[in-house]
Amino acid sequence: MKGYVFHGPGQSAWQDVPDATIEEPTDAIVRVDVVTLCGTDLHILKGDVPDVRPGTVLGHEAVGEIVETGREVHGVQPGDRVLVSCITACGRCSPCRERAYSQCRGGGGWTLGHLIDGTQAEYVRVPFADLSVHPLPGALDAKDAVLLADIFPTAYEVGVLNGRVRPGDFVVVVGAGPVGLAAIATARLLSPRHILAVDLAAPRLEAAKRLGADAVADVREAPEELVRDLTDGLGADVVIEAVGAPESFDLCTRMVRPGGHLANVGVHGKPVTLHLEDLWSRNLTLTTGLVDTSSTPTLLRMAATGRLPTAPLVTHTFPLDRMEEAYDVFAHAAETGALKVVLGGEQHELVAVQPA
Amino acid sequence: MKGYVFHGPGQSAWQDVPDATIEEPTDAIVRVDVVTLCGTDLHILKGDVPDVRPGTVLGHEAVGEIVETGREVHGVQPGDRVLVSCITACGRCSPCRERAYSQCRGGGGWTLGHLIDGTQAEYVRVPFADLSVHPLPGALDAKDAVLLADIFPTAYEVGVLNGRVRPGDFVVVVGAGPVGLAAIATARLLSPRHILAVDLAAPRLEAAKRLGADAVADVREAPEELVRDLTDGLGADVVIEAVGAPESFDLCTRMVRPGGHLANVGVHGKPVTLHLEDLWSRNLTLTTGLVDTSSTPTLLRMAATGRLPTAPLVTHTFPLDRMEEAYDVFAHAAETGALKVVLGGEQHELVAVQPA
Amino acid sequence: MKGYVFHGPGQSAWQDVPDATIEEPTDAIVRVDVVTLCGTDLHILKGDVPDVRPGTVLGHEAVGEIVETGREVHGVQPGDRVLVSCITACGRCSPCRERAYSQCRGGGGWTLGHLIDGTQAEYVRVPFADLSVHPLPGALDAKDAVLLADIFPTAYEVGVLNGRVRPGDFVVVVGAGPVGLAAIATARLLSPRHILAVDLAAPRLEAAKRLGADAVADVREAPEELVRDLTDGLGADVVIEAVGAPESFDLCTRMVRPGGHLANVGVHGKPVTLHLEDLWSRNLTLTTGLVDTSSTPTLLRMAATGRLPTAPLVTHTFPLDRMEEAYDVFAHAAETGALKVVLGGEQHELVAVQPA
Amino acid sequence: MKGYVFHGPGQSAWQDVPDATIEEPTDAIVRVDVVTLCGTDLHILKGDVPDVRPGTVLGHEAVGEIVETGREVHGVQPGDRVLVSCITACGRCSPCRERAYSQCRGGGGWTLGHLIDGTQAEYVRVPFADLSVHPLPGALDAKDAVLLADIFPTAYEVGVLNGRVRPGDFVVVVGAGPVGLAAIATARLLSPRHILAVDLAAPRLEAAKRLGADAVADVREAPEELVRDLTDGLGADVVIEAVGAPESFDLCTRMVRPGGHLANVGVHGKPVTLHLEDLWSRNLTLTTGLVDTSSTPTLLRMAATGRLPTAPLVTHTFPLDRMEEAYDVFAHAAETGALKVVLGGEQHELVAVQPA
Repeated sequence: MKGYVFHGPGQSAWQDVPDATIEEPTDAIVRVDVVTLCGTDLHILKGDVPDVRPGTVLGHEAVGEIVETGREVHGVQPGDRVLVSCITACGRCSPCRERAYSQCRGGGGWTLGHLIDGTQAEYVRVPFADLSVHPLPGALDAKDAVLLADIFPTAYEVGVLNGRVRPGDFVVVVGAGPVGLAAIATARLLSPRHILAVDLAAPRLEAAKRLGADAVADVREAPEELVRDLTDGLGADVVIEAVGAPESFDLCTRMVRPGGHLANVGVHGKPVTLHLEDLWSRNLTLTTGLVDTSSTPTLLRMAATGRLPTAPLVTHTFPLDRMEEAYDVFAHAAETGALKVVLGGEQHELVAVQPA
Repeated sequence: MKGYVFHGPGQSAWQDVPDATIEEPTDAIVRVDVVTLCGTDLHILKGDVPDVRPGTVLGHEAVGEIVETGREVHGVQPGDRVLVSCITACGRCSPCRERAYSQCRGGGGWTLGHLIDGTQAEYVRVPFADLSVHPLPGALDAKDAVLLADIFPTAYEVGVLNGRVRPGDFVVVVGAGPVGLAAIATARLLSPRHILAVDLAAPRLEAAKRLGADAVADVREAPEELVRDLTDGLGADVVIEAVGAPESFDLCTRMVRPGGHLANVGVHGKPVTLHLEDLWSRNLTLTTGLVDTSSTPTLLRMAATGRLPTAPLVTHTFPLDRMEEAYDVFAHAAETGALKVVLGGEQHELVAVQPA
Repeated sequence: MKGYVFHGPGQSAWQDVPDATIEEPTDAIVRVDVVTLCGTDLHILKGDVPDVRPGTVLGHEAVGEIVETGREVHGVQPGDRVLVSCITACGRCSPCRERAYSQCRGGGGWTLGHLIDGTQAEYVRVPFADLSVHPLPGALDAKDAVLLADIFPTAYEVGVLNGRVRPGDFVVVVGAGPVGLAAIATARLLSPRHILAVDLAAPRLEAAKRLGADAVADVREAPEELVRDLTDGLGADVVIEAVGAPESFDLCTRMVRPGGHLANVGVHGKPVTLHLEDLWSRNLTLTTGLVDTSSTPTLLRMAATGRLPTAPLVTHTFPLDRMEEAYDVFAHAAETGALKVVLGGEQHELVAVQPA
Repeated sequence: MKGYVFHGPGQSAWQDVPDATIEEPTDAIVRVDVVTLCGTDLHILKGDVPDVRPGTVLGHEAVGEIVETGREVHGVQPGDRVLVSCITACGRCSPCRERAYSQCRGGGGWTLGHLIDGTQAEYVRVPFADLSVHPLPGALDAKDAVLLADIFPTAYEVGVLNGRVRPGDFVVVVGAGPVGLAAIATARLLSPRHILAVDLAAPRLEAAKRLGADAVADVREAPEELVRDLTDGLGADVVIEAVGAPESFDLCTRMVRPGGHLANVGVHGKPVTLHLEDLWSRNLTLTTGLVDTSSTPTLLRMAATGRLPTAPLVTHTFPLDRMEEAYDVFAHAAETGALKVVLGGEQHELVAVQPA
């Protein structure tokens, strides 16, 4: 079969790889129908994630069909259309019993395209299949569903739920990349009175408006003053960091109101400075998190009834075997306007949608 | 009347001051019976709190008797024995309506001994008396009650409740000064399975055991390894920072388990480094806070029924007019073993209790 | 001045009454601009609420302008446009400090048009004005705002928040009168995947669709079977009772899933039978409540930004002095199709909108 | 092997039964070391639980040693000492993923000694062993641990946690049988200011005091007036019903304060009357529930560190083969003073401890 293999920093290829096979009785093999690329994949390709050994098939998001199951898999069977989640879960360890699947101590967590071969291939082996794949509601298109493998539950759980967005809140989302945009879309589910999106790039701010932002601000134009003006000097109830950089994090701490929530979603590569000399007395709640995907069944039901605006996030589609070209488009998002790049699906024609 | 006046860094005196009088119709005048000294007072004396203008009477903790009330005070009357809380509250602004009294936007918050004259005097004017003093249950001794003006609600709200201590938890308290000790005592109310106290000073660790710590550790002897050993490698469910220093904060972040809570109680004077490059994926909840004193009525009821061990925290008592000597003992805690120094009370004899 | 006076069962009139005047220093006098009628008023007129003494001016919902304030009122002043809430609150007692204003022990709670003269008059005295009136955001029309005096916070707090509606939930609202319709509209704020409205009257079910119900069911056509079919046999996550009758309550208990919430909003005049022989093991949470109006500031902000669909609830408007005619229309809702009948406002022409 | 078999109302015997064997690959066989009797077993013997077919081995509480495991059991192995919980859980269905194991839709829930053979035997087959047995901490005695199979998690989850007991609360427990006593003991973990136990039987009220009740009241002596006197007329914050009778439930509704919680733990055989004509406006939260045993790992850790007073509940012990005599003592609790009767254990001598 074919797969997209990481060979070390700057080196990768869509190439022949050994067939995916059942290794443990709790495994399932999924024929990949649709797959998408994640910013994390770009970090791996640069060599920023040393856990990933050369030779690994990348990818942790897919929709496909079960073709084989190990003898201990009881919840799904060959022929089922499923979402392959970025998180696998043994279901037995103490974090799994608390639904903290990302912290699984029994061999799960983020393993696909990281510690084991991933989804950017014709077939993928999914460990602990009973808890790690989600049957697809019939009405749901694979291209919409694949966004629920990672970015939608990440944005919703780590941004919106951790941030405790409530009806009537003033919410700021810093960073309007795919995850930030999904945070805007899922924050909308809780009916905040105002969502302000902050970013550097005008096209991303345009996308933010399409996903439900009430206002947008360029990060260079003192967004914290705008927040003060719009909140009677108080600050935002909830600020969601979706960049992963020290300056962005610091900006977030200056926009949140006393008693407010700062939910960090961004993946950070460096320490940040936390101004506790100011913040110690401000009743701040700061949260971090890797997604647990405990919300995935709920999000799938909502997507199936048209209540999640996934489509505006997909800017480019490719057939599966044009993986290298897809990576090229995704890696140059500033020029191509790429948000989410999706590969595969029933019709494999190239449809490149430019953002408005 | 007499009061203890701050005259600028390093300068202060117990001296004549103008009588406390009703200035607003919501004020009450309280004759001070018992008062205590706070670490924050020492910071003010050093000049670390520039908001405090020379000429201000210090102190934000007292028990006394109402002697006069403004015409808009309805909840208390002359003759009532009351606790004067470190936080005053207008009761009308939006933070007050959310019980976030520390963030009062109507003129309250921490004002006593900070922005206005405080409690270390024979009489004190208390603004917004209806919401800022608490009638004393009859059974409660003033020397016990005065610890509920600040350190007990601070430790309980900002440490224990913010940290979400639950039955069965493994809890670490870093810093066994008065507030850390009160955090140990109030964490006990939620029946954690283990409380580990961490400090530098052996006498404080001894006090920690008396207040309910199950084990103690010297901060120089790798307490994080001890935590790992005692928690099957997982880390603590809740870590309470009660020091207010960058190294202490950093240690706390290394002891908390994935999915755990870090409740900052310490007053910080400098920024800290937050290692988000490790912590972004660990589902950490970090909280900060100034006390709201919303728990004070509950704590008063519990103290009155003997369920709060306040007494072990009081190491020295003085008559009110030996304020300067009391400050001297309190400022040299390393030598004197002082935890809380209490002044006043029905018998004004010096009772200096050395810590065991 | 004129007011609508209850003279005993079946007897009432729009007539001259003594002018509203300041009685306590915490009072405000409001010139009534817009007022509305509540189902509770009809109960009073029938004699079902014996606490209401003959001679009382009815009404507990209004929008108007402050014309005078007592000397202890600090938060509002003459000239302010305000919402007069159905609940007044002393702000000092222990329930008020917990935001349980409906249970005020200091003289507030539901008093207007109940224990003291109410809002169906040219002027009304509002006790504890600081906490009992809400300044109107400029953009908000009085006819929309008046629905936030009672039915919107009631539906939201007692129905939606008590019922813990969450994104993705299956919600049933039994009773599509004004409060049930407001429950549908405010449940929508939390993005349930499906709202089913149940009632007897076809016009009310039509209104339910306009307010956001996904489906409707006649109560006589086995709605519990429909719920089972739509939820894979499980039952509804949340059921809101908005009728106040034993059969309706019983139906609700049969539609809620194990682990679900039943939020009672209906005003009951008789005991109900609770089938604990079935329900003891089903992990049911049942809540009751009188509205606290703690959500009113949030709802006002949302209405001002167009996020609350209040308008579809107003079916009839009258000038204030045609109160008796308005009551007649409201009391015969089955024939007139009346939902909320609003009186007053800048243009006082009769606008009778028939429900679609 | 031997087991205690139900043969229909009034008929049962300790007799030969077929050996317990692995039927599903997720099963484990446990050699029973210690077992206890539950009030539910008495109901079954009377014929009150028609689901139980004649021929069934009774019992849903045990401590023992794993002697065999099916090939899909990974979390425990032969030789492990385990607690057999009253609830088994498939771990894959949607209630199990929400930790609502009692509502398992995959074949678990309360099955042992109910729908399949139970624990009152020399060996027991436990389905879904990975999630249904709990390894025993080394320090914990089997006779203490067996109380964590049902009554302690039931009292804690369904009574104390559902009732939201918080530090400083006033708590009433109605019914001082084994589950009510365990509710008193576990309510203590949250440091209420006062626990009042209500029952008919003086010996049970004595036991209540030993388990931590601050006061006791005979149900015939107007306990609701006592509650009013002790709570300034307000009522109890939390009332726990641990009887399962209409009058007892009704008493509970009259003792709970506005805004309080009524947690039903009792098993009811008949409907109750709920006085919604009074309660609709009192902001009551009423909960019901079968235990999920999600708290069992926490309770085991607490018991192992001596923080759960289990021992005072065990009044009688027998060797396993004197099961019929043990039932006789347990069924006549009024005369024998039996609370929990435990069978088995390393020393099999009769130790009949009379309650003080």
